Amino acid sequence: MTAALLPGSTLPDHAWVIGVDLGGTKILVGAVPVGGGPPIGVCSAPTQPEEGAEAVIERLAGLVRETVETVQDAAAGPVVGIGLGSPGPLDRHRQVVVETPNLSWREVSLGARVRSLTGLPTTLDNDANCAAFGEWWRGAGQGFDPLVAVTLGTGVGGGIVLAGAPFHGASDVAGEFGHTVVRLGGRLCGCGNRGCIEAYASGPNIVARAREALEAGDASPSIEALMTDERLDAGGVFAAASDGDPLAQRIVEETVSVLGAGLANLVNLLNPSCIVLGGGVARVGAALLDPLREEVKRRAFASAAQACTILPAGLPETAGMVGAAGVFVHAWEAGLPELAQVP
Amino acid sequence: MTAALLPGSTLPDHAWVIGVDLGGTKILVGAVPVGGGPPIGVCSAPTQPEEGAEAVIERLAGLVRETVETVQDAAAGPVVGIGLGSPGPLDRHRQVVVETPNLSWREVSLGARVRSLTGLPTTLDNDANCAAFGEWWRGAGQGFDPLVAVTLGTGVGGGIVLAGAPFHGASDVAGEFGHTVVRLGGRLCGCGNRGCIEAYASGPNIVARAREALEAGDASPSIEALMTDERLDAGGVFAAASDGDPLAQRIVEETVSVLGAGLANLVNLLNPSCIVLGGGVARVGAALLDPLREEVKRRAFASAAQACTILPAGLPETAGMVGAAGVFVHAWEAGLPELAQVP
Repeated sequence: MTAALLPGSTLPDHAWVIGVDLGGTKILVGAVPVGGGPPIGVCSAPTQPEEGAEAVIERLAGLVRETVETVQDAAAGPVVGIGLGSPGPLDRHRQVVVETPNLSWREVSLGARVRSLTGLPTTLDNDANCAAFGEWWRGAGQGFDPLVAVTLGTGVGGGIVLAGAPFHGASDVAGEFGHTVVRLGGRLCGCGNRGCIEAYASGPNIVARAREALEAGDASPSIEALMTDERLDAGGVFAAASDGDPLAQRIVEETVSVLGAGLANLVNLLNPSCIVLGGGVARVGAALLDPLREEVKRRAFASAAQACTILPAGLPETAGMVGAAGVFVHAWEAGLPELAQVP
Repeated sequence: MTAALLPGSTLPDHAWVIGVDLGGTKILVGAVPVGGGPPIGVCSAPTQPEEGAEAVIERLAGLVRETVETVQDAAAGPVVGIGLGSPGPLDRHRQVVVETPNLSWREVSLGARVRSLTGLPTTLDNDANCAAFGEWWRGAGQGFDPLVAVTLGTGVGGGIVLAGAPFHGASDVAGEFGHTVVRLGGRLCGCGNRGCIEAYASGPNIVARAREALEAGDASPSIEALMTDERLDAGGVFAAASDGDPLAQRIVEETVSVLGAGLANLVNLLNPSCIVLGGGVARVGAALLDPLREEVKRRAFASAAQACTILPAGLPETAGMVGAAGVFVHAWEAGLPELAQVP
């Protein structure tokens, strides 16, 4: 139906790329149109990592086939490949998941297995880079470069887009914003250091700080009620703060102070034109974004703060999946060596 | 003698570029060979900023002419242009010094004035970027990319080299490592924030912390003796620490702790393949570098720390001057718009 498409050439607008966001709890797959517009054939399944890597990969490949069929049924254009996004650390070039605490994987050849199960070429990049690239390619960050995307979720992730490409650094670790320290000697972080941004600003750590304050004797009927119902999350803390709860207000202020200092560090160091904030915690919206913008403006160099637009995610649910497809398109058009491994 | 050299073309190895490092106290000028090897015609003069911008620029142009004559007398090859390095903030494209506290300049058209006084094309970049580019081009950081150069001097500066070019960010502010916060609420910094790296690790702040500890009642005969002689500098604090002085050891430990956390932040965020440490404070050598390397290894993600070599400056006196010339060569060969302004 179409002329042969070769790596190193521009993909036609009517071509499709399958984006895969492999998470610890969910696999999200969709077909992303190269020329722009919404994904089609979006489907998902629970990851169930306890069944082992091969079962997860077969489930993932099944979702990919389902999505490819949707594109074919719609006669929408050729599917040229699959962009895989996975938690890291990864070996991007060999397309191997080196180790992921979330999936309990070690040295899993994700790219090779998916290629063999689907017959399509693949790229692999980490979830935070895919989310950042998705926001830059199709989300809130379109037209902004350099861009940093920060995800405030179970952890605090970060991804950097520079000169229209995901920035990986020397060993694919770049962007670990959550594990930059702004309060030396502060709260213990999961990574073993003290005072990391993640130790304050991830969803679970916002909840933990509220709980610790209660245990230390602070009073807050609204937080206590949410805890009793096992419904306390970061959104609940922000809601209690806007209802005037003093304990919740203190937790929010500290979150803004730590996260604002971390973002100001980013602004002074990388001087990005945009920071996109996503993840569950960012969904509280203006209650977080407005004071954060003020804090960055107050802290960073004026010309760097002025140059940096801070925006909520444009693709709060799908940035990772869309960005994984975008990474494939970028790698294909740049003729990157990952694609020499076409099956 | 030579064929016409046009921006956008590769400069021949036998060509020369004049590098200028304009500092608050000294102007350093030298001719840097495009093909490699040591600078010639190196000369310097006190800046004397109190005489006003025009007097400083005329003195600078006089040094440039002196250096050009040295190249001509040696019949060493054509001089193709001048790379200017200056404290910022700058407007690089218009080659204007927007504002420098060190020189008390505001909106000085440095590039245009130097072009008109010398008849040579110019580029302008800030001193920290020039120093980083110099270390990457001809110093300790050759072959490393991404590279970060940190200067521990009167202030704490930083410059980033990415993909073989100085990295400027959205508004030429990128690299302000000294004003990243690692101890929220800590020591007051000259920039108005608390807990910046510069507030602990610049030369004057290392001395100030020793003085404050004495004033707070700590005893240290060796530090007191240096203070009485007005000979206390960062090197003296490190020397006293290695002689076993407990107060000096505490100051050194805190310096390593703050600077190590800041460098680990850099390593996790940018994942550089090399960090070059220069400036007066870095001249203490292994007494700073060895514990810093340990601290970064202990704090940063293993694969990022392993990928990052931490080195002392290879051009401790001349990185800014050599790098300014390198920035010119890079801009010339890339055909950057700055050089459309050839006189």
